[in-house]
Amino acid sequence: MHFASDNTGPVHPRVLEALTQANAGYALPYGAEDLSTHVRDRIREIFEAPDAAVYLVATGSAANSILLATLVQPYQTVFCGPLAHIHTDECGAPEFFTGGSKLTLTPDSDDKINVEALAAQVAELDIGDEHFVQPGAVSITQLTERGTAYSLDEIGAISDVAKRHKMPLHLDGARFSNAIAALGCSPAEMTWKAGVDAVTFGGTKNGLMGVEAAILFDPSKAWEFELRRKRAGHLFSKHRFLSAQMAAYLEDDLWHAMATSANTACAELVRGLKQMQEVDFPYEPAGNMIFCSFPRRMHRALKAEGAQYGVWGSLDGDDDEAVMCRLVVDWSADPANTARFLEVMRAA
Amino acid sequence: MHFASDNTGPVHPRVLEALTQANAGYALPYGAEDLSTHVRDRIREIFEAPDAAVYLVATGSAANSILLATLVQPYQTVFCGPLAHIHTDECGAPEFFTGGSKLTLTPDSDDKINVEALAAQVAELDIGDEHFVQPGAVSITQLTERGTAYSLDEIGAISDVAKRHKMPLHLDGARFSNAIAALGCSPAEMTWKAGVDAVTFGGTKNGLMGVEAAILFDPSKAWEFELRRKRAGHLFSKHRFLSAQMAAYLEDDLWHAMATSANTACAELVRGLKQMQEVDFPYEPAGNMIFCSFPRRMHRALKAEGAQYGVWGSLDGDDDEAVMCRLVVDWSADPANTARFLEVMRAA
Amino acid sequence: MHFASDNTGPVHPRVLEALTQANAGYALPYGAEDLSTHVRDRIREIFEAPDAAVYLVATGSAANSILLATLVQPYQTVFCGPLAHIHTDECGAPEFFTGGSKLTLTPDSDDKINVEALAAQVAELDIGDEHFVQPGAVSITQLTERGTAYSLDEIGAISDVAKRHKMPLHLDGARFSNAIAALGCSPAEMTWKAGVDAVTFGGTKNGLMGVEAAILFDPSKAWEFELRRKRAGHLFSKHRFLSAQMAAYLEDDLWHAMATSANTACAELVRGLKQMQEVDFPYEPAGNMIFCSFPRRMHRALKAEGAQYGVWGSLDGDDDEAVMCRLVVDWSADPANTARFLEVMRAA
Amino acid sequence: MHFASDNTGPVHPRVLEALTQANAGYALPYGAEDLSTHVRDRIREIFEAPDAAVYLVATGSAANSILLATLVQPYQTVFCGPLAHIHTDECGAPEFFTGGSKLTLTPDSDDKINVEALAAQVAELDIGDEHFVQPGAVSITQLTERGTAYSLDEIGAISDVAKRHKMPLHLDGARFSNAIAALGCSPAEMTWKAGVDAVTFGGTKNGLMGVEAAILFDPSKAWEFELRRKRAGHLFSKHRFLSAQMAAYLEDDLWHAMATSANTACAELVRGLKQMQEVDFPYEPAGNMIFCSFPRRMHRALKAEGAQYGVWGSLDGDDDEAVMCRLVVDWSADPANTARFLEVMRAA
Repeated sequence: MHFASDNTGPVHPRVLEALTQANAGYALPYGAEDLSTHVRDRIREIFEAPDAAVYLVATGSAANSILLATLVQPYQTVFCGPLAHIHTDECGAPEFFTGGSKLTLTPDSDDKINVEALAAQVAELDIGDEHFVQPGAVSITQLTERGTAYSLDEIGAISDVAKRHKMPLHLDGARFSNAIAALGCSPAEMTWKAGVDAVTFGGTKNGLMGVEAAILFDPSKAWEFELRRKRAGHLFSKHRFLSAQMAAYLEDDLWHAMATSANTACAELVRGLKQMQEVDFPYEPAGNMIFCSFPRRMHRALKAEGAQYGVWGSLDGDDDEAVMCRLVVDWSADPANTARFLEVMRAA
Repeated sequence: MHFASDNTGPVHPRVLEALTQANAGYALPYGAEDLSTHVRDRIREIFEAPDAAVYLVATGSAANSILLATLVQPYQTVFCGPLAHIHTDECGAPEFFTGGSKLTLTPDSDDKINVEALAAQVAELDIGDEHFVQPGAVSITQLTERGTAYSLDEIGAISDVAKRHKMPLHLDGARFSNAIAALGCSPAEMTWKAGVDAVTFGGTKNGLMGVEAAILFDPSKAWEFELRRKRAGHLFSKHRFLSAQMAAYLEDDLWHAMATSANTACAELVRGLKQMQEVDFPYEPAGNMIFCSFPRRMHRALKAEGAQYGVWGSLDGDDDEAVMCRLVVDWSADPANTARFLEVMRAA
Repeated sequence: MHFASDNTGPVHPRVLEALTQANAGYALPYGAEDLSTHVRDRIREIFEAPDAAVYLVATGSAANSILLATLVQPYQTVFCGPLAHIHTDECGAPEFFTGGSKLTLTPDSDDKINVEALAAQVAELDIGDEHFVQPGAVSITQLTERGTAYSLDEIGAISDVAKRHKMPLHLDGARFSNAIAALGCSPAEMTWKAGVDAVTFGGTKNGLMGVEAAILFDPSKAWEFELRRKRAGHLFSKHRFLSAQMAAYLEDDLWHAMATSANTACAELVRGLKQMQEVDFPYEPAGNMIFCSFPRRMHRALKAEGAQYGVWGSLDGDDDEAVMCRLVVDWSADPANTARFLEVMRAA
Repeated sequence: MHFASDNTGPVHPRVLEALTQANAGYALPYGAEDLSTHVRDRIREIFEAPDAAVYLVATGSAANSILLATLVQPYQTVFCGPLAHIHTDECGAPEFFTGGSKLTLTPDSDDKINVEALAAQVAELDIGDEHFVQPGAVSITQLTERGTAYSLDEIGAISDVAKRHKMPLHLDGARFSNAIAALGCSPAEMTWKAGVDAVTFGGTKNGLMGVEAAILFDPSKAWEFELRRKRAGHLFSKHRFLSAQMAAYLEDDLWHAMATSANTACAELVRGLKQMQEVDFPYEPAGNMIFCSFPRRMHRALKAEGAQYGVWGSLDGDDDEAVMCRLVVDWSADPANTARFLEVMRAA
């Protein structure tokens, strides 16, 4: 019963096979191998963005931060939600890569940036007064850090505010595929068609070993991205092994299939949980990650059975008190585990 | 006939197998998996350094730069040779990671730092005068960028100068294993016993997909290293796949076997080349990388046969003029290729 | 009627005289002149801190940021209020000097950090988990950005929280002297005796041309401060002219006299304003800067008479609507101007 | 007998008077005062550059580094001579301000950059290969750190190389005025007409307390300069006191008169020294700073008489051995001191 995180799950067998195939003989290093060209072209196709600059790196923090450093000057600020992964979980990576840009926390509805609050906040910035950091970029996460999904309209509205102040919109897509599967839209629709300028198309949480594609729809800063990637130690010499993973991910839309699989398994879990009246959902689940609260005795029973997941609070205390938790379902999730999880809860 | 670089070669099959084995089921992320503990303990054993701090990252630039940033303050300088990879090939990575430390280029014998020159250079620094950057660290590369090896005494002498000015000695060991195989000494002898304080124990150029171990023999800055690694986007969530590669690398001393294999094949190549009087060696080859010059007509013949290697100069010009080249032999080198390479040269 | 800011006022004549005296003949540069030694010793005396490291720079941003960069690592965070000058008015200077430390905004009572909120916020930090920036320092401003003063007990309580997490407490004393005059305490009582570790003892807003003393009560990082000051271009070659200003400032407690003068003039203004029932004070004035609101027609009358001060909002609109403003009184304020200011308001 | 440095000398009385005049009443802060507009316009006139962006800061390190940070990206390099003040005397300030740009040391004739060496060095850079830092800017110092002057043709030739690789040319003009007086040309001729893009027009070493003008002939990055200046704590609130100094400096070409005065006094000293056959000049003096060697016994005699100047080596040793020294003459130099200096030498 592994629901701790989608980064604890295994890699898809086709990805491992792809590594083995890519291993034959010699290959040019640093992304000059044919497989890299192939993969980058395929991503441009999938995103319907023939001019986009596309690069592979091994971690989401790297993809997000190199993109932001390419888009934002040190004396500018990045607007993001207080829960943004780039703010809370990367030990200050954006500040490091950008040379000290500030992150301005935009009020949120506890999962998504509030677009009116964003507009008000940018308006308050003294643009053109050198005492103040200047508008740099807006960054959102999709799926959000609370497992919900911005609608295309919501993304568009945020982009409108950003564009009004000449800021690019960055999308941290650690769970990009799960969002696409949830919304039933195309990658182009969720990105540049909705006003997104730069995106991290995540693979690591969705069945790869460690590959993320960083995409700039406007390629004018492509060369800067390359230099910043190298300078940060994120250009792989044996780049073919990043390409191979991504090639397998794209082939026959494996990325979409894995995300759908995770989302479906998660929906099954949600369905079961919603049947228990003691379970409360503060946010409406959209993809493969949910937050819910239920009585401590259920948690104790689950933990006693070895269930792996994050709990927001102590397991010591009143049996009936509701305790919040996070459950994440990965592409490889076994339905039997979901069933058992629900069973243990019901029995408790 | 692939002699372009050891990073163009394949991964050892046992490494791929290890990835497949590590892929079973769920594992804790970010280096908390058991395999990580195992690997770090093994490295401590191999280096006879029970207290050392050991971390895995995916690139050599990352390992070197995070180590240097942990050891050196922004207002200090790193002494290294003019050919040091950290200076010439990483797009300023050390300057980025350290927050703008200077690299001071120490005169060399075109492959190794000159220890007297280093001593003179440090002595010239106005230590204690705030107008000048202060001594931070010394960094050497082993095998050197010219394919030679520092002797243990040479390392010790450099360390003595460093220590006299309270500087740690960093060793960029991209080809660490080849150096060990060349010198016939132990990892401990080539590092802390010779006065090395921090080392990058490279795997990527020697049969791994992309793993380097960063080692701090004095663990007092271990926590700082961890924070800097995370902040730079170099902490892998699915860390088990770094651990698995390194575990395979260490098991039955595969690292040593692969390096020995590369060195042996290279020695065979050198033997053949030395029999041709037109071939000139500016540096005495020690491991798996050589620099030599021979007439342009031979280069043309080799390139016509598809030989892959780096040439320092143009292939247009006088047939008999000597042109310098670099040849690197990897662990998987096929003796037949070496034989054919020499044959093509002889025929030219 | 100049109430725009204390940095728009003139320099005290004794300061100008001191410059002329210091100008005679030659003097050692970079702070090696005798006057520098004298001034630094005097500051140590005034602060009853014989071991303190004391340095002069020309701007408050420099003093604050070099102190913070000396105290805080890039992977740590500085806790400060949302109104902190270091956060809102220095274009990201602390982020620049520290190499990208984060500033964490601590909830406030709109002028002072809330000590319970601070304690809760630090407790929430995952100390010891490398995904999160670690506790670095706490920074407060005295007088606050709203013109109020932390009591000694309030400073002590904040320091207690800071110390519990091994964080130094930094005090931005741009209006340090006004706070001392307001509280009637000694510099030692308002700083190290209350748990402050580093302080900017401001002179620029209080009658100097541009000098601030940066003080570290624990001198163990003095040398680092010196290197960071030089590296940031803030070490003056003709340092004697900084020393001369500060010497005049300290002589016969001119600093205290000027602050008292400004505070007294401000108190006179407050007294007058409080007699008008339409004037509302959101914060209790403590020193030489006040925030108050009164009807727009009064603002219009004042502006028509050429009064200089900051207005928070538009002068277009309903005559009777209350509009907020900021008034700052400097050491040179003429009582006649205050009287006239009040008169214009009463007449409106 | 003060020949230690031009930064040990006094400020011109007219500068002090200007401070007193500027002190009357209130003035807008941060460079918004009328005097600032006046000064910036005058500089544009003097440089015949009506569109230039002009800013005042208090130190040369700040002027140089903010200019370089505005012109150069972190992944680029600045070419400068091994003796460049920005490299040797500012504790890594350019690296700090630029976010870690490298300084590439261009071979010199021990005082000036060698233009052929520069051309060769840039040609060697792998432009367009992300492993290598890219060309960023070229920086020269005028007067040079050895007291010589680049001719206009030499500056033009360096600029040609820079422009060929799209690099701006920066001129560190700490002794700009002395160079103008030496060459007998106009500021425009020595800067933009010769291909200089950005210049520090120094005042501090030539009779001001601490003011340098940073000039960008192409104003397209003016706003970026302003933000970087603020962010570095180098925007003065009481900016009128920088403006006042510069206004006095420009009025009736005081800057030129002071430089001429220093150069003339220095020439007198050189004339006397050249009459002594034991004095040797490694570089041909051009302005107000000279390097020469003469027997140790003369140094001893001078030091015994209290002469202040820098000696390159020990005063212990053989009486007749030649020892190098640096002598700098400031605007206020008294001819009587020069005469006495020469007399002491002759007597020794």
